[in-house]
Amino acid sequence: MKDVVAGIDIGGTNIIYGLVDKSGNVIAEGRLKTAEYPDIKDYVSAQHTAIKEMLAMNPGHNLIGMGVGAPNANYHKGTIELAPNLSWKGIVPIAGYLGEKFNIRVFITNDANAAAMGEMIFGGAKGMKDFIVLTLGTGLGSGIAVNGNVVYGSTGFAGELGHTIIVPGGRECGCGRKGCYETYASASGLVRTVLNLLSEMRLESNLRDLPPSELTSKKIVEEAEKGDRIALAAIDYTAEMLAFGIINAITFSSPEAVFLFGGLVKAGELLLAPVRKYVDQNVMPIFRGTVKILPSSVSESNAAVLGAAALAWNELKN
Amino acid sequence: MKDVVAGIDIGGTNIIYGLVDKSGNVIAEGRLKTAEYPDIKDYVSAQHTAIKEMLAMNPGHNLIGMGVGAPNANYHKGTIELAPNLSWKGIVPIAGYLGEKFNIRVFITNDANAAAMGEMIFGGAKGMKDFIVLTLGTGLGSGIAVNGNVVYGSTGFAGELGHTIIVPGGRECGCGRKGCYETYASASGLVRTVLNLLSEMRLESNLRDLPPSELTSKKIVEEAEKGDRIALAAIDYTAEMLAFGIINAITFSSPEAVFLFGGLVKAGELLLAPVRKYVDQNVMPIFRGTVKILPSSVSESNAAVLGAAALAWNELKN
Repeated sequence: MKDVVAGIDIGGTNIIYGLVDKSGNVIAEGRLKTAEYPDIKDYVSAQHTAIKEMLAMNPGHNLIGMGVGAPNANYHKGTIELAPNLSWKGIVPIAGYLGEKFNIRVFITNDANAAAMGEMIFGGAKGMKDFIVLTLGTGLGSGIAVNGNVVYGSTGFAGELGHTIIVPGGRECGCGRKGCYETYASASGLVRTVLNLLSEMRLESNLRDLPPSELTSKKIVEEAEKGDRIALAAIDYTAEMLAFGIINAITFSSPEAVFLFGGLVKAGELLLAPVRKYVDQNVMPIFRGTVKILPSSVSESNAAVLGAAALAWNELKN
Repeated sequence: MKDVVAGIDIGGTNIIYGLVDKSGNVIAEGRLKTAEYPDIKDYVSAQHTAIKEMLAMNPGHNLIGMGVGAPNANYHKGTIELAPNLSWKGIVPIAGYLGEKFNIRVFITNDANAAAMGEMIFGGAKGMKDFIVLTLGTGLGSGIAVNGNVVYGSTGFAGELGHTIIVPGGRECGCGRKGCYETYASASGLVRTVLNLLSEMRLESNLRDLPPSELTSKKIVEEAEKGDRIALAAIDYTAEMLAFGIINAITFSSPEAVFLFGGLVKAGELLLAPVRKYVDQNVMPIFRGTVKILPSSVSESNAAVLGAAALAWNELKN
């Protein structure tokens, strides 16, 4: 029998789960539709059935723990708290429910912290004690490792770099405030920057022919690759703002590396090269040249499951 | 025989040293003039003689370790590196020199990290795992505790919150960049704010009768206490900027408390009350009400020695 853990990533649309061994091999992966389980108890039952079936179809595996990545997850309490995109309202003690049902230890954290765990246990941060993972999607999530541990803070909610204010009075943010890092440095931030540049600049651009509601970071990157000057300027500005948040984070924890993860990173060197340039230009002198800016080395296709599994493996080790 | 450690605080003008027991009692304290020892070897000899004499005059004490707080101190390497205000040039392996001379273990960190250690071991942060100490002097120093340990980062220089940029393109900073936190939230930041307000506002003020080079935060606080409206407005703005850096730091590590230390804190509630108000108004909603803003409870008169001693006690415990 080979020991495995279950990694579960709970999102607003899908719940992805899988069995992961100690080396980071994903034995099997499955998916549930979040909307089909408005009652948490029904979800727990369905998840139990699904994982039992998965174990039955993949004999020779012994389930020894479970890690869960979820929005608004409280690592300390094992709860999901007031998650706006989930139908489970209030404070949901999900780690307790799953732990009872499976009779194993269950650990939970938010998806960005899980990504940091995945990077540390299975990815490019192996052997690093101080690093930061930024997940660039609709928002900007962050997982921070200090001295070999992910930072949870006194509340369990630490690592919300997407909501550091970098432009006082700047763009409206979903958190109700203005000028948060993620309103500039994220896929949706890139879209907002294009809209702003379309208003500011007179350059021709294919991006003028799309309704703003259909504008995506993917489309912008494609146009940039074809030489569209608005798209290129928007990526450069996004890189500058991304770098700005990074240089401030460096003064806090002096990481060895910052890993970038998520859809926006598909832009590759088009984004990474100017990020490195702006970090190098603007970082506090004593930190110049001390921080690597790297794409995540965890494959995006199973990063969510790997991150959640890494959390469990790391906790079980302790 | 009672075990004690030596705590040493190295500043540009004075080197203060003392013997401290495990409960934080300062058995004795002494002082050397930094300028008298342009050669590090001479300093190490003089420090050795001074502490030996101190031990002889306070019999019954057994020296088991040493902690040093110094500018540009590298915790990992035991060095002072390129400190602009010290005559010891280059990279000075001071922990090694002192360790050899005394034949005990010597630990070194910068003064703000030492202040955090002092707060954790002997002060208001006893029992806290996640907190931040901000030292408000000419600059703004910071010591950050995460999960019960002071954050040193991959370089050993972490915790430079005074150099997070909070106003892009803002006030010139000694680090060569612009808009750093400490150019607003510090004793000298308060002075700069008064000068700015004297230019912007037409209010009468006693502060108009002093040459700017003689303007001090102490004088400003005195005038504010007498009701001077420029002084009051400057303190309010300083509180707002101080709060701004705090709310961004909270998204990083979600501390249980932020301790304020140093001359500026003598303003008391005049400063602290608006800091709390602005933090509460502007912090990310999930952190609202989770962070206490407190004055340091380590007495300023021997905080430097206590902080350095706390570093040693903490390391010897491990």
